Amino acid sequence: MEPKTPKDSRTIITDLVLPSETNPIGNMFGGELLARMDRAASIAARRHSRRIVVTASVNHVAFNKMIPLGSVVTVEAHVSRAFTSSMEVFMDVFIEDRESGKRSISNEAIYTFVAVDEMGNPVSVPPLVPETETEKIRFEAALRRKQLSLVLAGKMKPNEATELKALFEE
Amino acid sequence: MEPKTPKDSRTIITDLVLPSETNPIGNMFGGELLARMDRAASIAARRHSRRIVVTASVNHVAFNKMIPLGSVVTVEAHVSRAFTSSMEVFMDVFIEDRESGKRSISNEAIYTFVAVDEMGNPVSVPPLVPETETEKIRFEAALRRKQLSLVLAGKMKPNEATELKALFEE
Amino acid sequence: MEPKTPKDSRTIITDLVLPSETNPIGNMFGGELLARMDRAASIAARRHSRRIVVTASVNHVAFNKMIPLGSVVTVEAHVSRAFTSSMEVFMDVFIEDRESGKRSISNEAIYTFVAVDEMGNPVSVPPLVPETETEKIRFEAALRRKQLSLVLAGKMKPNEATELKALFEE
Amino acid sequence: MEPKTPKDSRTIITDLVLPSETNPIGNMFGGELLARMDRAASIAARRHSRRIVVTASVNHVAFNKMIPLGSVVTVEAHVSRAFTSSMEVFMDVFIEDRESGKRSISNEAIYTFVAVDEMGNPVSVPPLVPETETEKIRFEAALRRKQLSLVLAGKMKPNEATELKALFEE
Amino acid sequence: MEPKTPKDSRTIITDLVLPSETNPIGNMFGGELLARMDRAASIAARRHSRRIVVTASVNHVAFNKMIPLGSVVTVEAHVSRAFTSSMEVFMDVFIEDRESGKRSISNEAIYTFVAVDEMGNPVSVPPLVPETETEKIRFEAALRRKQLSLVLAGKMKPNEATELKALFEE
Amino acid sequence: MEPKTPKDSRTIITDLVLPSETNPIGNMFGGELLARMDRAASIAARRHSRRIVVTASVNHVAFNKMIPLGSVVTVEAHVSRAFTSSMEVFMDVFIEDRESGKRSISNEAIYTFVAVDEMGNPVSVPPLVPETETEKIRFEAALRRKQLSLVLAGKMKPNEATELKALFEE
Repeated sequence: MEPKTPKDSRTIITDLVLPSETNPIGNMFGGELLARMDRAASIAARRHSRRIVVTASVNHVAFNKMIPLGSVVTVEAHVSRAFTSSMEVFMDVFIEDRESGKRSISNEAIYTFVAVDEMGNPVSVPPLVPETETEKIRFEAALRRKQLSLVLAGKMKPNEATELKALFEE
Repeated sequence: MEPKTPKDSRTIITDLVLPSETNPIGNMFGGELLARMDRAASIAARRHSRRIVVTASVNHVAFNKMIPLGSVVTVEAHVSRAFTSSMEVFMDVFIEDRESGKRSISNEAIYTFVAVDEMGNPVSVPPLVPETETEKIRFEAALRRKQLSLVLAGKMKPNEATELKALFEE
Repeated sequence: MEPKTPKDSRTIITDLVLPSETNPIGNMFGGELLARMDRAASIAARRHSRRIVVTASVNHVAFNKMIPLGSVVTVEAHVSRAFTSSMEVFMDVFIEDRESGKRSISNEAIYTFVAVDEMGNPVSVPPLVPETETEKIRFEAALRRKQLSLVLAGKMKPNEATELKALFEE
Repeated sequence: MEPKTPKDSRTIITDLVLPSETNPIGNMFGGELLARMDRAASIAARRHSRRIVVTASVNHVAFNKMIPLGSVVTVEAHVSRAFTSSMEVFMDVFIEDRESGKRSISNEAIYTFVAVDEMGNPVSVPPLVPETETEKIRFEAALRRKQLSLVLAGKMKPNEATELKALFEE
Repeated sequence: MEPKTPKDSRTIITDLVLPSETNPIGNMFGGELLARMDRAASIAARRHSRRIVVTASVNHVAFNKMIPLGSVVTVEAHVSRAFTSSMEVFMDVFIEDRESGKRSISNEAIYTFVAVDEMGNPVSVPPLVPETETEKIRFEAALRRKQLSLVLAGKMKPNEATELKALFEE
Repeated sequence: MEPKTPKDSRTIITDLVLPSETNPIGNMFGGELLARMDRAASIAARRHSRRIVVTASVNHVAFNKMIPLGSVVTVEAHVSRAFTSSMEVFMDVFIEDRESGKRSISNEAIYTFVAVDEMGNPVSVPPLVPETETEKIRFEAALRRKQLSLVLAGKMKPNEATELKALFEE
């Protein structure tokens, strides 16, 4: 399969925070943002693989800022590394100030998807070739994250996770 | 106020068609697409004006293609002309084929928004300066559409709608 | 097919404006009203044709009044003219004051639907015979609106739109 | 307060059964119909009282027929009896066959509402005067139902429920 | 079929009251609670019968307390009596105070479900054997409620409803 | 503040997978499950702290099994470790087979919440004392996960993460 770049799968959802998506103190529900990111990430994974994709894991999401009712929220997703049939998708979440128009980062998130056929069996996906500096950094880190997932799931022994181990030996 | 370009207000919502958004024959509900376009267009109008904006009218929406369940739908909105306190927003709607990745136009739509203050009173918005050829054509046509709206609402006599009249005299 | 009257397709949706349907300044979302009207209009078109119907276009919707949270909104729809397989549906939207009980018009809207078979192919619909004075006026105007749609879509030359042209020649 | 008739509070919600409102075997969810009836009944109670109203009880709802996906469902509500600050609302639910256009009764339901002020305290409502034969029968039965509610809630002794007792002594 | 106890079907839904589920004075919508109870009760009936179940009736629901936005609401459902193919489900609804953590009863409700096969035909369900004192009281009362339903539906003459009649003869 | 046990915050949401919560191949959407878990976890954190709580991070969620339409899904959440103002919440997700009634684990998930005052400032929460063997294991592991979060966020140097480091040195 022909390799693809992160640009090929870039997906943008810009949308408002409506009253039905806020918690009792008037900020966007964590759960609503998680769901919105899942939709953006699944479209990116589908654009990379041109296959049906299902969420395999949510690797890490930090909610650094409260997002108030009425905000404009932009989720930008792109595939950051492809493995045999799984894809790591990296997301940057921005909010923008209505009056100044200034954009600020609200969240980063990483989800993993698996490409499947109609019966739900995993199928191969094209390799990913990163282009920009940021894309290359994310590509490298993806391997450590994959090892971490396997260690946490008990499917890899810590001392076999060479990439990850190196991190703690410095 | 400093003029802005259509690029300044460009807004993208790419999202899936979920089962809750389909009609009984498995295609996206017209009403759901109308609502999604309203959100995209209101963000574009807000980016242009940096004000609270409210929908003033839906000028014309043609549904040329059925959009099946599971489609990826992209709504791209930008302000196409600014008047005193109202803004015309033009939208292109695309769907993409999962297997080939090919994008095709599904709809065009035009909505009008008014910028208001916290009390709901209209406030001025920056002028719009079109840049590309397409943007210039849409900018010109916007005046005819505005006249048409006024005529249809009985607020302008047909023979005062000079731009529009010209169309039928050619 | 036996002709029908607007009364035969008359459809009423009276419903509340709930918190999940309001924008950040506490009024009903334009998009929510567009979706509610789409449902009312599609039922009217279905009652006229007794067929599956799909939204073909939204011809013009003006939002003249803000509709605050908690309002009771009534959408009244009826088919205003039938063509070969398409039907124009006219809607009057009312809100009522809780304390006085007084009803006031909030919007008028016009949508067009096409009757289709299970495969999505257009099928014929019964003719419409208007009865009241208002129904007759709307019936007449429907032809001009259809020509306008065709002109705007580039499917009819302005000078062939005889009904429409007359409007500007008076 | 001036008395009102059932006609004064008559409220109609005609709407589709969408995919998001069905259970796994493709029929309308009982819970969704209960919620839709609550909205229709609350508008009828509000039209009668011109006050804020809150649901006090659901007296009896029988689901006699399955309502399949895509059905057109009409809920017709009217106040059937007014007490000091509470109102009984009677609802008839119809579905219609798309091809024949024939309407059939799907459900009957009875809800009770209380009129309250902004602080949630009960306030008086106008008396109801039934007009048609059906309205008179429903008006009479409402008293028995009220006694039944009080007995079931342990707020009235069975032998004080004179209207109800008579029913079993015949 | 082997008998079951109420414990076997016990089902708990603890959830928040979100802004999209409140009425204009900021309390949980009656209709939303009715729908949530329908889901809890249907799971209890399914756990008892291990069959597809459909709502047959809502016997009585009293809304004694307003439930404000942001509340934690717990619905606890269990089958209270099984008949040939129908099951009565009893529900206790609690809300809890955030600061003190104290739980208070907000509602009781009774729904009836019927077990069906894939074609919608009624099928037998296991008998229910109550264990605790409360369960025994509810079990006994269920027969009176069933007779009451039949009387109200005109399917049983009042003087044949022996259990119910006894209530008024004391 | 008096310590609490995991039992004190135990929260159960048992609910159905409805058609509006499924992806195009008929299984529960990852995003929907993430949102449901966020609600369950936030209630557990609130029960532990008796404070307003906001989602701080999603630490790891693995989706091991597809959850088909119509499934009964149970999310069981409890606080697994309390830090100064943050709480780790551990969740077990089960699905049950309708016919056999057998329960199987579908997911595990870990979210972190912060207790805040009305202004959104962090406030202290009671300590957690684990009781069962599983609770003790989860309590221990929570510290490693916290260090991992800090390392991944660049707020702690890998060689200061003593608990975590030990894992890779074995």
